Amino acid sequence: MTDIPSETAEHVPEVVVLRLPQYVRALGDLLRRGVTVVSSHQLGEHLQMTPAQIRKDLSYFGRFGKQGRGYPVNYLLDELRQVLGLERKWNSCLVGVGRLGRAIINYPGFTPEGFNIVAAFDSSPAEIGVSIGSLVIQPIAELEPTIRERDIRIGIVAVPASHAQEVIDQLVGFGVKAMLNYAPIGPQVPDGVRIRNVDPILALQSMTYYLKDN
Amino acid sequence: MTDIPSETAEHVPEVVVLRLPQYVRALGDLLRRGVTVVSSHQLGEHLQMTPAQIRKDLSYFGRFGKQGRGYPVNYLLDELRQVLGLERKWNSCLVGVGRLGRAIINYPGFTPEGFNIVAAFDSSPAEIGVSIGSLVIQPIAELEPTIRERDIRIGIVAVPASHAQEVIDQLVGFGVKAMLNYAPIGPQVPDGVRIRNVDPILALQSMTYYLKDN
Repeated sequence: MTDIPSETAEHVPEVVVLRLPQYVRALGDLLRRGVTVVSSHQLGEHLQMTPAQIRKDLSYFGRFGKQGRGYPVNYLLDELRQVLGLERKWNSCLVGVGRLGRAIINYPGFTPEGFNIVAAFDSSPAEIGVSIGSLVIQPIAELEPTIRERDIRIGIVAVPASHAQEVIDQLVGFGVKAMLNYAPIGPQVPDGVRIRNVDPILALQSMTYYLKDN
Repeated sequence: MTDIPSETAEHVPEVVVLRLPQYVRALGDLLRRGVTVVSSHQLGEHLQMTPAQIRKDLSYFGRFGKQGRGYPVNYLLDELRQVLGLERKWNSCLVGVGRLGRAIINYPGFTPEGFNIVAAFDSSPAEIGVSIGSLVIQPIAELEPTIRERDIRIGIVAVPASHAQEVIDQLVGFGVKAMLNYAPIGPQVPDGVRIRNVDPILALQSMTYYLKDN
């Protein structure tokens, strides 16, 4: 029991939450380079942000540094990892095991960061039962029980654009509240569900504008 | 000769340019569904933006619709594709052909959108000369002549984090002005060079914040 209100998702603007993983990464880099204390100025140079912005962002989560002394890197990193829920593992499932889905399964970055793809689904009968690494492709009909049994909290969507919204709706219906979408659409999700789009084509198309007159 | 100043990159805020590919995608979807005219209101629903924002964004590039009549989908799509330089093909090179780089080469989305990976480079002697699809992996020493000979305008970086900034600096030095970075770092580039980061881990880490108290 305490009079201090606990920090909850509602109090922090989403734009700040979106920046926190970049803080975590920058602090991890600094720690590996042996830096133990960092000023908001140094951190700002790393992240291309102003020191004032950094102090404001961090102030949502507590008082991490003493005025004029900088932030203790290790402590701040631990705290932010806790704020983001990165101290635990998160189970995810992949839906869509075509070329793109297979590339995602083979992406080396997920597991070391605590994101485990524990199940893979496809609608094509020819794919069901096929093994990819340690996963055996399951039919979509097994989505609901598998999500429940394996405590799957994140859905990774790699189906063709034409089926992506339908799959996302199914995942939402089965209680998945966080999704990583690789299909080239701008999907709709209800309030309380988060979705992030990984879309290299949009990224490329936003640069050719600057190339075309060169 | 004309008195009307030509539309140039400098006049348009980057945040507007970043949205244009989403307009292009939405208009393409509408066209495939047989829609020939779209209001800023409908387009706004599609893109989760206000009609006023859409009218303002598009006003940078000309007068596309008649007041109260909506935008002709086909015409607007063609114009925006031209604005973004999407009517031509763009050659790119991949640097870093580990697991991630191989996944990128196999990513099915680039070529149909006009982005061709025409060369692949790696620093590991064991990889040089190995074929992946139609590409033969080249040594980094061949980066400069290949960029020149193949008119490579985009660099795709998939080396380990520890080497990414160095590779990006090399590409900048050889005149590459647009980069897609898959390494988990926040790279620095000089003015006049654009870089976009594709980073599913950052995306996942920005969602677990909302999952952790559920």
